Amino acid sequence: MLEQLKQEVCAANLKLVEYGLVVLTWGNVSAITEDRRYVVIKPSGVDYATMTPEQMVVVDLEGTVAEGELRPSSDLPTHLELYRAFPAVRSVVHTHSRYATAMAQAERSLPCYGTTHADTFYGDVPCTRHLTAEEVAEAYERNTGRVIAETFRDRDPEAVPGVLVCKHGPFTWGASCRKAVENALILEETAHMALLTEQLAPGVAPAPQYLQDKHYFRKHGANAYYGQK
Amino acid sequence: MLEQLKQEVCAANLKLVEYGLVVLTWGNVSAITEDRRYVVIKPSGVDYATMTPEQMVVVDLEGTVAEGELRPSSDLPTHLELYRAFPAVRSVVHTHSRYATAMAQAERSLPCYGTTHADTFYGDVPCTRHLTAEEVAEAYERNTGRVIAETFRDRDPEAVPGVLVCKHGPFTWGASCRKAVENALILEETAHMALLTEQLAPGVAPAPQYLQDKHYFRKHGANAYYGQK
Amino acid sequence: MLEQLKQEVCAANLKLVEYGLVVLTWGNVSAITEDRRYVVIKPSGVDYATMTPEQMVVVDLEGTVAEGELRPSSDLPTHLELYRAFPAVRSVVHTHSRYATAMAQAERSLPCYGTTHADTFYGDVPCTRHLTAEEVAEAYERNTGRVIAETFRDRDPEAVPGVLVCKHGPFTWGASCRKAVENALILEETAHMALLTEQLAPGVAPAPQYLQDKHYFRKHGANAYYGQK
Amino acid sequence: MLEQLKQEVCAANLKLVEYGLVVLTWGNVSAITEDRRYVVIKPSGVDYATMTPEQMVVVDLEGTVAEGELRPSSDLPTHLELYRAFPAVRSVVHTHSRYATAMAQAERSLPCYGTTHADTFYGDVPCTRHLTAEEVAEAYERNTGRVIAETFRDRDPEAVPGVLVCKHGPFTWGASCRKAVENALILEETAHMALLTEQLAPGVAPAPQYLQDKHYFRKHGANAYYGQK
Repeated sequence: MLEQLKQEVCAANLKLVEYGLVVLTWGNVSAITEDRRYVVIKPSGVDYATMTPEQMVVVDLEGTVAEGELRPSSDLPTHLELYRAFPAVRSVVHTHSRYATAMAQAERSLPCYGTTHADTFYGDVPCTRHLTAEEVAEAYERNTGRVIAETFRDRDPEAVPGVLVCKHGPFTWGASCRKAVENALILEETAHMALLTEQLAPGVAPAPQYLQDKHYFRKHGANAYYGQK
Repeated sequence: MLEQLKQEVCAANLKLVEYGLVVLTWGNVSAITEDRRYVVIKPSGVDYATMTPEQMVVVDLEGTVAEGELRPSSDLPTHLELYRAFPAVRSVVHTHSRYATAMAQAERSLPCYGTTHADTFYGDVPCTRHLTAEEVAEAYERNTGRVIAETFRDRDPEAVPGVLVCKHGPFTWGASCRKAVENALILEETAHMALLTEQLAPGVAPAPQYLQDKHYFRKHGANAYYGQK
Repeated sequence: MLEQLKQEVCAANLKLVEYGLVVLTWGNVSAITEDRRYVVIKPSGVDYATMTPEQMVVVDLEGTVAEGELRPSSDLPTHLELYRAFPAVRSVVHTHSRYATAMAQAERSLPCYGTTHADTFYGDVPCTRHLTAEEVAEAYERNTGRVIAETFRDRDPEAVPGVLVCKHGPFTWGASCRKAVENALILEETAHMALLTEQLAPGVAPAPQYLQDKHYFRKHGANAYYGQK
Repeated sequence: MLEQLKQEVCAANLKLVEYGLVVLTWGNVSAITEDRRYVVIKPSGVDYATMTPEQMVVVDLEGTVAEGELRPSSDLPTHLELYRAFPAVRSVVHTHSRYATAMAQAERSLPCYGTTHADTFYGDVPCTRHLTAEEVAEAYERNTGRVIAETFRDRDPEAVPGVLVCKHGPFTWGASCRKAVENALILEETAHMALLTEQLAPGVAPAPQYLQDKHYFRKHGANAYYGQK
């Protein structure tokens, strides 16, 4: 079942390697079917070099395996929470890319210092609060998803398609695997540039709001004019 | 029409990827015909992996498409302003390369700390002022070109073939696509080295003017002796 | 003799190059037989580009060459000390990878700033004390191994499969060549992220102990649930 | 004439690209014949992608072209001064590699923070003084060589096979093209690590002298035991 989506999810996982966002098995991509009944996700701890679409695991929204011989990624419960909380999201990506992870380890939200950031993320990319010892003990991966959802209680996950999980690393999402993976790359690049910007000018201000608005809305929403029709 | 120039512009866009200056679709190269009637530019938001010379868009100096089925880069009005303001420039390049963009986000001009810089850029590479909210609202891309031209009111765009647009990123130019792209690479490398230099020696002085003169003029102008005849 | 192990050791040495952990001849991998009678190690100063399994050197635990026409790596006595001190270790890796070496040159232990670190290293990766002038003069390479063993007198080398030798660089180990090399990569990545984290947030705290526990024990020990069965 | 040496010099120039030490045409390698009558050097401003051994230029010690249709590298007079000043040197390399150039732009000597450095450079790699305006005006490239020789008046160029030219960049040398290019790579790597070390531990001390001695002399001189016989 879902052969097409398995191929997309497998290709998206390999794209993480091509983009330099993961080493070893440090990343995972999932996607949800259009009817939001099934999720396809990378198996846990499998080598990217030999990964095939057939190895992708199909689960339902409770996490029960519907097809596949391997265990799903141990981060599956986080992905499932995000699909539940964000109804427009069709794909979720998790990496330990260097600069985004460092920003998460620094317990900092990523400020918008320029148009590269504003083209994709409308405002800061937030860092979650710490999970409590109880949340970690009880259902760690699921509560990671919940603390992300909590962080977006007053934010639009389409306008800010990514988050930094405190002391852990980035999650991004999108309307397709391709978009979610691109957002993982953009988050890494903008985190890298943000550190460099602060090193060049300690205390530097974010980009003016009117410039952020211009760049975000020339690419998103009803009046977008970037790209092809 | 202009098949030769389309090939050059397409090849120059791909060179940006080879040089590691762009990811995704974050860059664009254009060139102007010798009679300065037509500009050839990359289409907007098209994947580098599948880009062909036939996809390049031909426009006149008002930006009206003369040939091509795709929309031109959304930065086209900036390119057109630069061709109007700088009569010797034959090609314009825009990237979001990491270090040059960080310098622009830091709202700083790039100082000349050594001969690597002085071989290509005679003095600082300036950072523009902020665009005003009105300039952004009225004609953002065109006014980006105008603020660059304004920055060069008392500078020679041949002696300093590049600029940092405040909170945005670098534009470079040259007498050919090859030169404009090389200048984009050199701006990135010298921005990178400048940050490292400041980290190694906070408050370090620029290169002495006589050394900057020597390096710039051994490669440029009537008495140049670098390279082949 | 030991053709299989020679192939593994040779492949592991080449993996160091693939992972970007060594340039020139700056690294070496060894492995010990299951009966702990023989060690297979890279020859000294041999080019990775032409390295073959046949060139690997077989020595006994006193360092006497049992097979092989080339000299063993000059770091052999360090490896032998580690096999003596750590009975569960089957492979040892030494590199001069940039960030881990810089941490060693900074005379600092690597703090655990997040889950990327905690997935592999349980707590800080310690930096050894300086070797004394006498230890260097008497038996430098052997005493390097002894000072590592001393550093782990109250630590579990399985829970922290790596060390930073003061003013020198990293050694890692594992239950197989593959694991030991992966640990060398993980040490480099986490050292890189640690520096970035401190640059983004000077004085930042380590990850909470309960989060370190969770990540370490979901991958290691009796209750691990990461990866495939 | 000198076909063998031309091949070595050409291959060594291409090695600079492979090692990531140069972009565009920012580097040059030369070698001197055993009888020290002729020098073979890269032509000026020629693309690495199309470089051939036949393009290498043969000059005598006055810099007069003995064979070759292209102009020699504009840095030739610097190379010639080094061959005159350092009788044991057989090859000279100049690059604008990032970290070594930044150290030169910072006007700093490279301290020995660890064994990676001590394996090749015995003590600091010195930064020259500034050239004076008169020296630059009179015979810039030749005086660059002279100021390097002056810097080594009380140093052994075999024990420290490299230098940082103030506000310019690194030169390295060796008993063969291969060694000189390797020293260029090692200088870049150790400069990179030195910056990281200082960022991790501001004010950190160099490696103890006895450790520097041990590492340098296990690889060099009569009692060396690193590598193969």
